[in-house]
Amino acid sequence: MTELLAEVGPDTESHHRYRLVDCDVHPIMRGGMADLRPHLSSAGRRRLGLDERRDLTTTGHREAVSVPRNMLYVNQAGVLRDDARAPDGSAPGADPAFTAQQLLDANGIDRAVLIGGEVLGLGAMPDPDAAALIAAAYNDWLAATWLEADERYRANLVVGAQDPSAAAAEIRRSGQNPRFVAVLLPLTNILMGQRHYYPIYEAAAELGLPITVHPNSGEGIFRTSPPLAGGTPTYYVEWHTGLSQVFQANVISLVCHGVFERFPELKVVLTEGGLGWIPDVIWRLDKNVRGLRDEVPWVKRLPSEYIADHVRFTTQPLPEPRRRHHLHVLCEIAQAERTLMFSSDYPHWDFDDPRHALTALPAEIRQRVSVDNAVETYGDRL
Amino acid sequence: MTELLAEVGPDTESHHRYRLVDCDVHPIMRGGMADLRPHLSSAGRRRLGLDERRDLTTTGHREAVSVPRNMLYVNQAGVLRDDARAPDGSAPGADPAFTAQQLLDANGIDRAVLIGGEVLGLGAMPDPDAAALIAAAYNDWLAATWLEADERYRANLVVGAQDPSAAAAEIRRSGQNPRFVAVLLPLTNILMGQRHYYPIYEAAAELGLPITVHPNSGEGIFRTSPPLAGGTPTYYVEWHTGLSQVFQANVISLVCHGVFERFPELKVVLTEGGLGWIPDVIWRLDKNVRGLRDEVPWVKRLPSEYIADHVRFTTQPLPEPRRRHHLHVLCEIAQAERTLMFSSDYPHWDFDDPRHALTALPAEIRQRVSVDNAVETYGDRL
Repeated sequence: MTELLAEVGPDTESHHRYRLVDCDVHPIMRGGMADLRPHLSSAGRRRLGLDERRDLTTTGHREAVSVPRNMLYVNQAGVLRDDARAPDGSAPGADPAFTAQQLLDANGIDRAVLIGGEVLGLGAMPDPDAAALIAAAYNDWLAATWLEADERYRANLVVGAQDPSAAAAEIRRSGQNPRFVAVLLPLTNILMGQRHYYPIYEAAAELGLPITVHPNSGEGIFRTSPPLAGGTPTYYVEWHTGLSQVFQANVISLVCHGVFERFPELKVVLTEGGLGWIPDVIWRLDKNVRGLRDEVPWVKRLPSEYIADHVRFTTQPLPEPRRRHHLHVLCEIAQAERTLMFSSDYPHWDFDDPRHALTALPAEIRQRVSVDNAVETYGDRL
Repeated sequence: MTELLAEVGPDTESHHRYRLVDCDVHPIMRGGMADLRPHLSSAGRRRLGLDERRDLTTTGHREAVSVPRNMLYVNQAGVLRDDARAPDGSAPGADPAFTAQQLLDANGIDRAVLIGGEVLGLGAMPDPDAAALIAAAYNDWLAATWLEADERYRANLVVGAQDPSAAAAEIRRSGQNPRFVAVLLPLTNILMGQRHYYPIYEAAAELGLPITVHPNSGEGIFRTSPPLAGGTPTYYVEWHTGLSQVFQANVISLVCHGVFERFPELKVVLTEGGLGWIPDVIWRLDKNVRGLRDEVPWVKRLPSEYIADHVRFTTQPLPEPRRRHHLHVLCEIAQAERTLMFSSDYPHWDFDDPRHALTALPAEIRQRVSVDNAVETYGDRL
């Protein structure tokens, strides 16, 4: 792997400002959707059923609007870590100061990139205007509540992909805040290579913001159209094991549609999608694009090269093969020294402790996974 | 890998009767659906629109019935190899004698396990009675036309999974012919772990027949419900690269539903589904079943152990990583010395030549992949 590292170029000084960067941390809204009230016009509040006539003092169920979430399955392990609850009893992950203490201080994390907890399912909303309204208010809430609370927080701004022009405008608006380092794109049932998304990619590339994908948007929610390949999984454990399929499908789509030729500056960060599928996708795709090149003549390089240049992966959930050597070979195939970034997924149930996750990786790539790749991906905004 | 081989047990003499077994060869019907006429009652012929009133002298388009096939994509490489056409000009793969000469004689293949070309899409038919009628007639046609033509042919009998009881009855009927060594299950949009299929598994296990899965049934055909995860792929190259998702989903489903606890004798052969995804599925599933065991308490062993004991993979399309070492590590993870069987996929466009495919594998497992694993999977019928 040494020769590969040499190709990546020497570490610059900036890489050593931080000890550890966590690329997947979820803030939770303390008071549910009502927290968005101060960030909406009165027309917006009425439109979303969050207006003053309603008693929203308790969380969740009194709003006229809610963001869809995966309610098809029971996760008997609980979705959020109970011990991530602040002393005031608020929901796990709802207190920026407590999160800073429990996650950042305790683990030496100097930068945490936030991915909105409640807006993951925004891609499943049928109404593009409601989705855009929620996205903008959520970004303002995140900036005011979390990004102001601790200088170590950075965040994904979120967009409703249902209306790509509105999403592009929101990227240009919220992207003015330099603490937003990426764009969370909650998936719909349109694969990422499709022209539908190009205004979003154009705006993101213009501002130098990577696009982030995370599980549990449209693909986790619909039952009538199976959320994964082949049919609807029966159990949470099936769905959760198979959810890497959505990432496979979207990487294949991005490459085959030539998105990285069209947007040469674009980076895509896949969070919580795992790593074990990378060999299958790059080997199949490299082979198939050779055999079927007339169908996609705009794919000018090997798919595995586009992926290494443009797609970034995060560690959690880290594969745990019986032989650690197998994980190391996977890192070699995935070019982890360039493509992999640490993530904890705090405060979710299957949180990865950085001490264990990083130790499992080859020693020679730990610094790159801990810090350098994140610095290169998020740039100066980090 | 040597210690793993030792666990498998010593090769028995029977393993050396053959030089090479090909587990995925597609016979094609010379005259289209009209070839089924002699194998249908007159009521059956009327039911399927194949009765004598119709002029069926040309193939394909004059029948009232056709088996669904994947018509969503253009494969500009052509689906069938042109050079697999017999001298009489019939369709590629339609002549048992020519196939025997071109494929078996030329490559030293002593057993070829047939998987019906036209019936792959049977799982997409809405009508269970039509599917059952076609399956039975097809099995009789296959027995009369191919299994009688050369003593090296063995075959999958096909069933319509839409009516599991009828399918079980067909397994018990056609399974009387010892040349049928397995059951082809054309996938529907119901995952394989579901109770729906248990009568089929029961009958197959009773006769000692493995269940075979192959791409391009229901999952390749429907557009309204996306054929793969996350949305409908736009291009053939996308669909073809991603089709391993269906295999991932079904293996996960089989394990999580406890099918191998319920049917301890059952074997499942996954043809043409690739290998590169195996690490992702077994690592995620082993980890998740530990964390979520209350949801599926009937899963008593590690998922990777069920898979190694009950699921078999075929070589084509063989992964072609840049470093051959990576393929060898994949074989180790997949326990290929027990689980992998050679296949060519003749006469399809992406046929694997046995000389190249077998040479790419680790030398110490070639004999097992060429012959022994197939003998153990198909048993005395082979």
